[in-house]
Amino acid sequence: MDLALDIKALANEGVNGLHPYQPGKPVEELERELGISNIIKLASNENPLGLSPKAAAAIAKASVELARYPDANGFYLKQKLTNYCGVDADQLTLGNGSNEVLEILFRTFVSSGDEVIFDKHAFIVYALLTQSAGATSVAIPSVDWGHDLDAMLAAVTAKTRMICIANPNNPTGTFLTPLQLQQFLAKVPEQVIVVLDEAYFEYVPVAERANSIGWISDYPNLVVTRTFSKAFGLAGLRVGYLVSTPELADLLNRVREPFNCNMLALAAAEAVLDDSDYVNQSVLLNSQEMARLTQWCDDNKIDYIPSYGNFLTVQVDDAQSVYRKLLQQGVIVRPIGGYGMPNHLRISIGLVQENDRLMAALNEILATKK
Amino acid sequence: MDLALDIKALANEGVNGLHPYQPGKPVEELERELGISNIIKLASNENPLGLSPKAAAAIAKASVELARYPDANGFYLKQKLTNYCGVDADQLTLGNGSNEVLEILFRTFVSSGDEVIFDKHAFIVYALLTQSAGATSVAIPSVDWGHDLDAMLAAVTAKTRMICIANPNNPTGTFLTPLQLQQFLAKVPEQVIVVLDEAYFEYVPVAERANSIGWISDYPNLVVTRTFSKAFGLAGLRVGYLVSTPELADLLNRVREPFNCNMLALAAAEAVLDDSDYVNQSVLLNSQEMARLTQWCDDNKIDYIPSYGNFLTVQVDDAQSVYRKLLQQGVIVRPIGGYGMPNHLRISIGLVQENDRLMAALNEILATKK
Repeated sequence: MDLALDIKALANEGVNGLHPYQPGKPVEELERELGISNIIKLASNENPLGLSPKAAAAIAKASVELARYPDANGFYLKQKLTNYCGVDADQLTLGNGSNEVLEILFRTFVSSGDEVIFDKHAFIVYALLTQSAGATSVAIPSVDWGHDLDAMLAAVTAKTRMICIANPNNPTGTFLTPLQLQQFLAKVPEQVIVVLDEAYFEYVPVAERANSIGWISDYPNLVVTRTFSKAFGLAGLRVGYLVSTPELADLLNRVREPFNCNMLALAAAEAVLDDSDYVNQSVLLNSQEMARLTQWCDDNKIDYIPSYGNFLTVQVDDAQSVYRKLLQQGVIVRPIGGYGMPNHLRISIGLVQENDRLMAALNEILATKK
Repeated sequence: MDLALDIKALANEGVNGLHPYQPGKPVEELERELGISNIIKLASNENPLGLSPKAAAAIAKASVELARYPDANGFYLKQKLTNYCGVDADQLTLGNGSNEVLEILFRTFVSSGDEVIFDKHAFIVYALLTQSAGATSVAIPSVDWGHDLDAMLAAVTAKTRMICIANPNNPTGTFLTPLQLQQFLAKVPEQVIVVLDEAYFEYVPVAERANSIGWISDYPNLVVTRTFSKAFGLAGLRVGYLVSTPELADLLNRVREPFNCNMLALAAAEAVLDDSDYVNQSVLLNSQEMARLTQWCDDNKIDYIPSYGNFLTVQVDDAQSVYRKLLQQGVIVRPIGGYGMPNHLRISIGLVQENDRLMAALNEILATKK
């Protein structure tokens, strides 16, 4: 046996700097360990309503064909998305979750020596993909936990290849107005690609939403990413998309592996685009429960960051300890020390009874601390 | 509007050299165009038996949870695979099809300036991933349509980062014996990663199979990839895996995005590993129909490459024309000019009645040509 091989020495630039993935345990394993049986998960910004009935029917119908490869081009889903987004099919790139469309984007445009600008408390995948590409992360300090667009502009250099903006942002829930974004886009050099990550788009009140996809004709360096994992309730199936100019989409689709979207993801995403009842109900539940949770925070003098997403990020001393105590009571939330926010917890908005349980547990834990 | 932006100029090395993906039409669209309604697909080396009943049950059961993210670590599937493969869980990397584990492998180890060696008629994904990484493809001419291992060894230079071997090979069906492979591995420099792609492993008669995974302890530069898309009948769900040393797997899992395997893929793959009836039946059907098809070729003086896979590659003059005539009769096979084999067609082994229809159609077409 040759134990001399140092496999790390063979890895590409950036790979060794990535943190090894720390596998979490499935909820069933966690329950076994903790000796409890009714864990609720308010940790991953999932849709608490469960699967859309129309998506469920589409999945059952499509399952018989699963020994076949999926449609490599997502023909029918793209047809539906052209209506939903008001674009042509050749402007779309489908992915295994919006995580993968971001990955494809980085693999297409970012390499060693490049700089990528994003907010210090933005979605962590931007930093991981930058590192993975051997490029340099330029993390801009937030203002009131939100993106500082002026500082981002000021950070642009000749090496800047991309700027990533999450709107609403995860894990802070902050929101940039259409006007702010348009003024920003007008000032970004055209050779810098601007990624507008709208994973939480459907939770933004209609009157406040940007017509961001409509801006692509003016700003060919703009790409917009969306997902079916949030308001559309398909996190388990993995499907997201990216909208861009046809020229940019052509490059991404060269890099994309043909069967990246599985057959049931395609079928379910088509179906849920037709299930406006489900999406409306999801958004309504979220806004009602968000109002209830923020009122409760106000009443109990708990600081939080006003959120446009399906989650609320609250400030607590010793967040890790509060996280563990909540876990012992069977409530999983998300500590976000990894986002540079060691004194915050991100809480996904759940069903009424789930949020009740969270508030009762948090009440008890915080009362004990006082 | 700024039409001056040349987006291609911003793309990474290699991207512009990739061929734009030519989207095929879904079978339904093709039927509409051709005015026929009973197309059979013998083009993608899928399992003609359809979905395993145990997998179907697992999918129905898991579907209710689809609004949740999948288990990022594939805990339960890895448990099952440790038994199936005789390895530890930390030697496994799961992917969105084996295509993605190959992609992760290239992203981890291959970059600009590297060379990757593979057979001239090997699985086309090796060439695409090499190009995508900005690396150089070293395609070795085949001997009797099979890998020339001596020539591959002779092609190793200081720049060689990886050698890819598909066994059985797609699209030729050729097979290397365990002895040939072991002698080869003993001569490959340890800093060169050897990828043994065993997508068609389950179709190889048990007595002839290599214990390739067992060799990893002797050759830490060896990785073995497998898929659930063939004998396990889950092409539509996308799940494959890679077996390596724990140290190599650790690097791949840093690069892998956490939710790359969807929830139903995980559930169905677990279930089908328990469905030995289904797998045995799939393999038996394949060997019986392979025998029938090769006998028919012998009887009709049609040249073919003896195959260890679930497909048979036959030689025909003017393969493109034969392909189109078969299509008009509602039989889709795979022309493989893109693999440098313009006079061959790759035919997937189907159900008895599907193979009957193929042979009848081919008989008619070839008779007309004579």
